[in-house]
Amino acid sequence: MSQQIRVGIVGYGNLGRGVEASLALNPDLELVGVFTRRDPETLIPARPETRVFGIDALDGLEDRIDVLILCGGSKDDLPIHGPELAARFNTVDSFDTHARVPEYFAAMDAATSGERVAIISVGWDPGLFSINRLYGEAILPDGDTHTFWGRGLSQGHSDAIRRIPGVAAGVQYTIPSEEAISKVRSGERPTLSTRDKHTRECVIVLEDGGNEEAIRQAIVTMPHYFDEYDTTVTVIDAEEFNREHRAMPHGGFVIRSGQSSPETSQVIEYRLALDSNPEFTASVLVAYARAAARLRARGQFGAHSVLDIAPALLSPDSPETLRARLL
Amino acid sequence: MSQQIRVGIVGYGNLGRGVEASLALNPDLELVGVFTRRDPETLIPARPETRVFGIDALDGLEDRIDVLILCGGSKDDLPIHGPELAARFNTVDSFDTHARVPEYFAAMDAATSGERVAIISVGWDPGLFSINRLYGEAILPDGDTHTFWGRGLSQGHSDAIRRIPGVAAGVQYTIPSEEAISKVRSGERPTLSTRDKHTRECVIVLEDGGNEEAIRQAIVTMPHYFDEYDTTVTVIDAEEFNREHRAMPHGGFVIRSGQSSPETSQVIEYRLALDSNPEFTASVLVAYARAAARLRARGQFGAHSVLDIAPALLSPDSPETLRARLL
Ligand SMILES: NC(=O)c1ccc[n+]([C@@H]2O[C@H](COP(=O)([O-])OP(=O)(O)OC[C@H]3O[C@@H](n4cnc5c(N)ncnc54)[C@H](OP(=O)(O)O)[C@@H]3O)[C@@H](O)[C@H]2O)c1
Ligand SMILES: NC(=O)c1ccc[n+]([C@@H]2O[C@H](COP(=O)([O-])OP(=O)(O)OC[C@H]3O[C@@H](n4cnc5c(N)ncnc54)[C@H](OP(=O)(O)O)[C@@H]3O)[C@@H](O)[C@H]2O)c1
Repeated sequence: MSQQIRVGIVGYGNLGRGVEASLALNPDLELVGVFTRRDPETLIPARPETRVFGIDALDGLEDRIDVLILCGGSKDDLPIHGPELAARFNTVDSFDTHARVPEYFAAMDAATSGERVAIISVGWDPGLFSINRLYGEAILPDGDTHTFWGRGLSQGHSDAIRRIPGVAAGVQYTIPSEEAISKVRSGERPTLSTRDKHTRECVIVLEDGGNEEAIRQAIVTMPHYFDEYDTTVTVIDAEEFNREHRAMPHGGFVIRSGQSSPETSQVIEYRLALDSNPEFTASVLVAYARAAARLRARGQFGAHSVLDIAPALLSPDSPETLRARLL
Repeated sequence: MSQQIRVGIVGYGNLGRGVEASLALNPDLELVGVFTRRDPETLIPARPETRVFGIDALDGLEDRIDVLILCGGSKDDLPIHGPELAARFNTVDSFDTHARVPEYFAAMDAATSGERVAIISVGWDPGLFSINRLYGEAILPDGDTHTFWGRGLSQGHSDAIRRIPGVAAGVQYTIPSEEAISKVRSGERPTLSTRDKHTRECVIVLEDGGNEEAIRQAIVTMPHYFDEYDTTVTVIDAEEFNREHRAMPHGGFVIRSGQSSPETSQVIEYRLALDSNPEFTASVLVAYARAAARLRARGQFGAHSVLDIAPALLSPDSPETLRARLL
C-alpha cells in the first residue's frame, strides 16, 4: 500500500481545478483522478498527467481512495452528492449554504455510519474565518466580532447583474469600507451595519443597443442585492473586461476587538488577500484532506467541521517537528 | 459537584493578575484561589473576593481544582514547578523559552503519567502565532512566513538597558518596519533579516549625573541586543516616564504569502494589537484551561501544545451551537 494519501476529486469546476493544482504542491498526497458527471472525454485537465473518469467509475474504488474532495456546488450538488459519497468514502467538502449547515452536518454524520470521516464546510468563509471568529470570542469574551468581505468578486451578485436585459458581461466587486475598518481596528467597538461596512462596485459590458441609464437604475435599485448599498456601475468594453475582470480575487477581514479588563483594549485581526478565491479554497480543502486521512487512521469517525480539527492535523510534519519549529 | 470548571492560579505576577481579571469574564470558570510562594498575607489581590494561599495549601486540593494555571516565569519557575504540579494537577502554562520546548514538553508529558492533562506554551508567541504559522504553511506550502513583533515593550531588552550605570528607569519598544510589512503583504516574497524588519526605540530616565552620550553609546553598541539594529534613545523625565511608559503593550503580525499556482499569490495575515501583553496572554491561558478540563473529561491525557487542540474546545458553547453560529 502506498504511503501517500490517495485523493479523488469529484467535480471539475473552479474548485476542482484548484485542488488539482494544490495537490501538485503536496507530495504526501497523490491524485487518483478526477470524477465528473459529464462525459470524461470532453474534459481537458490542466495537468496532462491527470486522469479523468465518469463518476460511476468510483464504484469499486472504495479501498483505493483514502479521501474524496467534493468540489460540487453547495446549492444543488453537495446536498445530494455529499451523503451518497460519505456512505462509501471519507470526504472533505466546502459546503457554504450557511442556513443549512446543521442539516447538512446531520446528513453527512449519518452517512458515515460511524465508519468513515466527513469534514464539512472547509474553505475560508465558512472555514478559516469561522475558526478565527471562534478563537476571537473564546479569548476575548467581552468583545465584538466584525467580518468584512473583499475586495472581491461576489459570484451571486455578478450572476444577478448578468441577468439584466442589455448586459453582455458583468462582475460585481464587494469593497470593505476603510473608514469602518479603521474604527473597528481602533478598538472603539462601533455599531456597524453590513451597509456601513461595504460598498459594491459593478463593472459591465453592454449588449449592442443596451440602455446604460436604464441598466444602471435596474442595478442600484435591485432589492436585497444592491438597494441597501452604495453601488457604482462602470461600463467598459469587452476587450478590457476580458483582460481585467476574468480572475476571481477575494478576501476579507475578521476583526475581534474587546477588553480584557476595563480600559484595556485588545484587537485580533485575521486578513486574507486572495488572487484566486477558488484556488485558495482548494488549498484549504487539500490540507483538510490530510486531516481526514489522519482522523480515519485514529478511528475518529463521523462528521466534523473545521472547528473540530486540531491545527497539527493539517501539516505533513510530525507533532515533535512542529513543536520544535513553530512554538 | 459544581458544574463550573474550578481553577487555581499559581504565581501572582503580571500574568497571574491577568488570569484573575479574565476569569471574571468567563462565568463557566470559577477561581478557587491564588497560590503563591510569597507570604500570602503580603499580597493584595486586585479583586477583593480573591482568596490567596501559600503554595503548600495545594496539598490535598487535587480533587477540588480541575485545572491549575501556572503563571510563573519560563526561565526559573516553570522548569521546576511545571513537572511537580503536573504530577498532581491538570495544568496550563505559557512556557516560552523556545529552545527548551521539546525538553519541557517531555518533562510535562512524563509528569502527567497518562492520568492528567498538561497544555504547554499557551499565549500568543508561542501560542496563537504558532497556530497561524502552522495554518499558513499547511495551506500554502509554496510560500514564506514572516513574523513581525511590535509595536511592543520587550522585557529582556528593557532589563538590559536598566542595567547600564546611570540609567534610573528605561523601557525598550520593538517597532516593525512599515516598509518591510508592505513588501511582505504585496506577495513579492522578499528576503528580510530581523534587522530589516524591526527597529528599536529606547526611552530612559537618567540618574543624577548620568552621562547621556555615554549611555546612548553603551545602548546602541550593546552586542546581541542592539548592535545589529537601528536604535533610537530618548531621554525623558521620571514624571513623564511614569505617566506614559508603565503599560505593557505588544503585538505583531504573522504573514504567510505564497503561490497556489504560478502567478497566483495568496496572502494570509494575522495581527495582534495589545494594550496589555500579560492580560492578553492570560486571556488565552483561561480559554485553554477550559480545553484542558474537556480533554481530561474525554480521557485525552498527557502533554499537549496549542497545535494539538481543536478550536471548538476553547469555547463555552456546544459544537452544535458553534456550527450554527460560526460556519
Ligand atoms: N467555503 C468557502 O470559503 C468557499 C469558497 C469558494 C467556493 N465555495 C463553494 O464551492 C462550490 C463550488 O465552486 P466552483 O467555483 O468550483 O463551482 P463551479 O465552477 O460552478 O463547479 C461546480 C460543479 O459544476 C460542474 N461544472 C463545472 N464547470 C462546468 C461546465 N463548464 N459545464 C457543466 N458543468 C460544469 C462540475 O461538476 P462536474 O465535473 O461533475 O460536471 C463542478 O464540480 C460553490 O458552490 C461554493 O459553495 C466555498
Ligand atoms: N507565550 C506568550 O505569548 C507569553 C507572553 C507573555 C509572557 N509569557 C511568559 O509568562 C511568564 C510570566 O510573566 P509575568 O509577566 O507574569 O512575570 P512576573 O510578573 O515576573 O511573575 C512571575 C512570578 O514571579 C513572582 N512575582 C511576581 N511579582 C513579584 C514580586 N513583586 N516580588 C516577588 N515575586 C514576584 C510570582 O510568583 P509568586 O507569586 O509565587 O511569588 C509570579 O508568578 C514569563 O516568564 C513569560 O515566559 C508568555
